Amino acid sequence: MATTEGFDSPALGEPYLLTPGPLTTSFAVKQAMLRDWGSWDGDFRAMTADLRRRLLALTGDAKAEFDCVPIQGSGTFCVEAMLGSFVPRDGKVLVLANGAYGLRAAQIMQYLGRAHTLIDKGDYLPPRGEEVAAALDADPAITHVIAIHCETSSGILNPVAEISRAVYASGRKLLVDSMSAFGAIPLDVNEIRYEAMVSSANKCIEGVPGFGFVIARKSELEAAKGRSHSLSLDVHAQWATMEKTGQWRFTPPTHVVAAFLEALRAHEAEGGVAARGARYLKNRDVMVAGMRQLGFETLLSERWLSPIIVTFFCPAHANFSFQRFYELMKDKGFVIYPGKLTVVESFRIGCIGRMNEDVMRRVVEAARQSLSQMDVSDAAPPRAALDERAKLAA
Amino acid sequence: MATTEGFDSPALGEPYLLTPGPLTTSFAVKQAMLRDWGSWDGDFRAMTADLRRRLLALTGDAKAEFDCVPIQGSGTFCVEAMLGSFVPRDGKVLVLANGAYGLRAAQIMQYLGRAHTLIDKGDYLPPRGEEVAAALDADPAITHVIAIHCETSSGILNPVAEISRAVYASGRKLLVDSMSAFGAIPLDVNEIRYEAMVSSANKCIEGVPGFGFVIARKSELEAAKGRSHSLSLDVHAQWATMEKTGQWRFTPPTHVVAAFLEALRAHEAEGGVAARGARYLKNRDVMVAGMRQLGFETLLSERWLSPIIVTFFCPAHANFSFQRFYELMKDKGFVIYPGKLTVVESFRIGCIGRMNEDVMRRVVEAARQSLSQMDVSDAAPPRAALDERAKLAA
Repeated sequence: MATTEGFDSPALGEPYLLTPGPLTTSFAVKQAMLRDWGSWDGDFRAMTADLRRRLLALTGDAKAEFDCVPIQGSGTFCVEAMLGSFVPRDGKVLVLANGAYGLRAAQIMQYLGRAHTLIDKGDYLPPRGEEVAAALDADPAITHVIAIHCETSSGILNPVAEISRAVYASGRKLLVDSMSAFGAIPLDVNEIRYEAMVSSANKCIEGVPGFGFVIARKSELEAAKGRSHSLSLDVHAQWATMEKTGQWRFTPPTHVVAAFLEALRAHEAEGGVAARGARYLKNRDVMVAGMRQLGFETLLSERWLSPIIVTFFCPAHANFSFQRFYELMKDKGFVIYPGKLTVVESFRIGCIGRMNEDVMRRVVEAARQSLSQMDVSDAAPPRAALDERAKLAA
Repeated sequence: MATTEGFDSPALGEPYLLTPGPLTTSFAVKQAMLRDWGSWDGDFRAMTADLRRRLLALTGDAKAEFDCVPIQGSGTFCVEAMLGSFVPRDGKVLVLANGAYGLRAAQIMQYLGRAHTLIDKGDYLPPRGEEVAAALDADPAITHVIAIHCETSSGILNPVAEISRAVYASGRKLLVDSMSAFGAIPLDVNEIRYEAMVSSANKCIEGVPGFGFVIARKSELEAAKGRSHSLSLDVHAQWATMEKTGQWRFTPPTHVVAAFLEALRAHEAEGGVAARGARYLKNRDVMVAGMRQLGFETLLSERWLSPIIVTFFCPAHANFSFQRFYELMKDKGFVIYPGKLTVVESFRIGCIGRMNEDVMRRVVEAARQSLSQMDVSDAAPPRAALDERAKLAA
């Protein structure tokens, strides 16, 4: 079975990318890029239609109330396209932030020059349903809420279900940035209500970077006409053209699209969202257990850990240097990711991409060897890190 | 020598793309996509630096007055990024249009909500220096002019040198959309003055689609701070981050970047802009001569034909159908391109991509066979087409 093969051999001896994307993809996904496609040609139009249909199916949209609109560029281009297209010019957005991606949504609203307000929970504390409800009660002008599904700054899986209940209980609309979660964490329209969500090709579907996609309620797509601040990022115009001609409005990244279709087929063959999520969860559990055995501590308690990426505190030991650790891990075939906490030093290890638990055991062994090479006898974090963590447990 | 090999065998028996991009690329370019890169990693940052340096070198910027800023997305994203970043919010743009890409620049200005005026020359007539000078004299509020270098709607090579002279004679600034020309038609900063230009990966450099780039005077890049309407398309912010960290602000299309670097190396090995342009010119001359022998007529006279793409009138013969012709040509391994003229029926054949004159002879032979299969004995255009063409000669 294709999905159980090839986990332990990236091509050309390249390192595994233990990052939130771009990530390690299968060789078959990359091989799909070995031909050129005419973007106007019928063959490519059929690929675009297949891609949209397959993505929609992942949302469980049985009533055909939603549609899928791919957008060129990085995931942030899609977040901006979503905000610029679904928030009316006289709307007001409540941005729920607990990390870089929430703050980026607020920054987009500043560029748009549209009203917004921010709940900023700092580095990682989750925005909860009750505080969203209170904020909406306090400000009737708010029309939309944007939530980050998995905030990869810390790796926290935010409680979008309770946020959604709070949003709709008070008659507002929810937009979700599910960039690093969609495809592995369910975001079923029958379970969690929202108007639109975005994700990108190079996350849990395990494609390569070059475009993202908006999945939105059709009534919202229709209402978005004329709202966008940007020709390139106008979701309504992109959707209307695709519906009419089957083509992207402007040149699509044809090779990246071909790779993504291969990734979608592998996602289905593996067993869809449930199976993909289960593999990542196993990756995380094996990796976190092994790292803890080495003395490393996670920022988050079990309740909030995502199966996407995990933040570890840097050891307090005087010999530890993140840059050295990074290079030693890379020498062993593993590219890890720097941390983003403002209070204490940290680093991150991703669990997503074409990897399984065997690979994760090798990651732990590489970390063990790297500590040894640095003469770090104890990976325990500084006291300040544990004090920081106590904030969430409280 | 790598550049003289492999013209006659796209991989997997796929058709040649005789289009203005995405186009036929070399197998080596596509093979460069067979590995995953971490966008934060030093290896990839070095690739970004190399790419920027190599692109800048193509402009002849010996004084280091310019810099290169790649932007994710299609070429249009770059045009929008350029207009939104270099035109002050209280500036006014004169858009020179003779086809779809000029009109698209005007449409972007409408989205931006910034002042603009349009010289619309219709389907293909070139905007000339004198009329630009007259328009600038008549409207002192105009601060910038945007010109399309090769307008692929018709295939015309617009007279950017005389336009530039008119713009700077009247103390305004020129922006150039050189999307389909850069890399094959000189746009040397020592020969033609401009403040900024844009092009994309999947045109004359022969990369695959997924990003474009802005090349701009550093003083303009500095002045662009805070002007953009869009976070994603903010050229100043992208530039400032790249200068500081070596990274793209948001996830770059890593595989497409790797392919583009391979394409840039092949471009240099072939002999740079001059050699690339000479090959395309030969492609065009062989193809146009052969098509004329079959009775086809070009829209444009020699003076205005680009070596990028050529518009032919559809034959007047009752048996001719473009859709049928398209399919017959595709069966023979050649994807051609529909026309965009509003007055008479036409089609286009591109001369760019990994093709040489031998391939173009096969294109002509395929056209001959296709006409024969359609029982079209004479490819001469209708009278109306020749009347249309007479407008330009006059």
